[in-house]
Amino acid sequence: MPHIKLSDELPGIVSLFAFRPDTAEPMRALAEELLRGPNTLTSGERELIATYVSSRNDCHFCQASHGAAAAHHLGGNEQLIADVKQNFDAAPISAKLKALLAIPGKVQQGGKNVLPADIDRARQEGATDREIHDTVLIAAAFCMYNRYVDGLATWAPQDPNLYRQMGAGMAEVGYIKEDAPPARAQSTAK
Amino acid sequence: MPHIKLSDELPGIVSLFAFRPDTAEPMRALAEELLRGPNTLTSGERELIATYVSSRNDCHFCQASHGAAAAHHLGGNEQLIADVKQNFDAAPISAKLKALLAIPGKVQQGGKNVLPADIDRARQEGATDREIHDTVLIAAAFCMYNRYVDGLATWAPQDPNLYRQMGAGMAEVGYIKEDAPPARAQSTAK
Repeated sequence: MPHIKLSDELPGIVSLFAFRPDTAEPMRALAEELLRGPNTLTSGERELIATYVSSRNDCHFCQASHGAAAAHHLGGNEQLIADVKQNFDAAPISAKLKALLAIPGKVQQGGKNVLPADIDRARQEGATDREIHDTVLIAAAFCMYNRYVDGLATWAPQDPNLYRQMGAGMAEVGYIKEDAPPARAQSTAK
Repeated sequence: MPHIKLSDELPGIVSLFAFRPDTAEPMRALAEELLRGPNTLTSGERELIATYVSSRNDCHFCQASHGAAAAHHLGGNEQLIADVKQNFDAAPISAKLKALLAIPGKVQQGGKNVLPADIDRARQEGATDREIHDTVLIAAAFCMYNRYVDGLATWAPQDPNLYRQMGAGMAEVGYIKEDAPPARAQSTAK
């Protein structure tokens, strides 16, 4: 049960965005720019980073919804999401993405854990300053979103189909609109 | 030395905001609403929460700058900031603020560490749902800002006078304007 009075109809962060629209707006805008804005990293790659960090933070709502968004971007390949969460170094992804994915696990433990050697490895695989920056910020931002969702004990549905529907909306419609698919998906699923 | 190429003139998160304005805008807006927006918690109390979390995350730039902003709001009482960081339960602050400050240390460790008993204690001291929400979100947000600042190894000046100048600007001018005091303070200090 949530620690504060939230809508019974809305899951996870959607219920918090409805509770406090004035903080929701910049939090939605940040997710939109980080995950769907113009970038040399694909949205699928960025959602994978978000999913990986959320799994390290053990946040069910975030890893399931962003994992579904990543899968939607990546042709419905749900096995790839599971592989990346379990052991990204053995997953069928590019050497550059593997090098970048080594950074979020460090950020999740604390910013000072990111070492020059981690950055060097990413650069050697062709990562740019902007890509390294965005990888660190996506990881840092999900350390916020994950703690927000779980720190207030929001409702995390268990039905994978609900997350598939949410993820498709997050991938196609995005994070800005208040009536974007997470809320709609929920009302459909009930 | 920062992990990516940043301005030599700008410290901490200010250098990152200059590097990536499209993510800076929502991050500035979120800080403004959380720390200076209309609220039943004073800005001094909210800056204390931000400072406490930043100290738990061992982020020098954030704890020094927000600590200075908190002191500015609280009549220049720098000893109080040090007392809260060291042991808030023994500091001369309200019982409600002590109960609220017990929550961010849990959030910093991970959202699921916040227990119903923590929320009950805050409520017994008169905290509202909105105050509990904002306390959790400030804590979560500084888990992002701290990791962003240290995960990219930004420059953290050591001069306390620089932070006093920054903190005064953060308290009085706020977080939105790109030419707000952190950057100006830096150019003055050089």
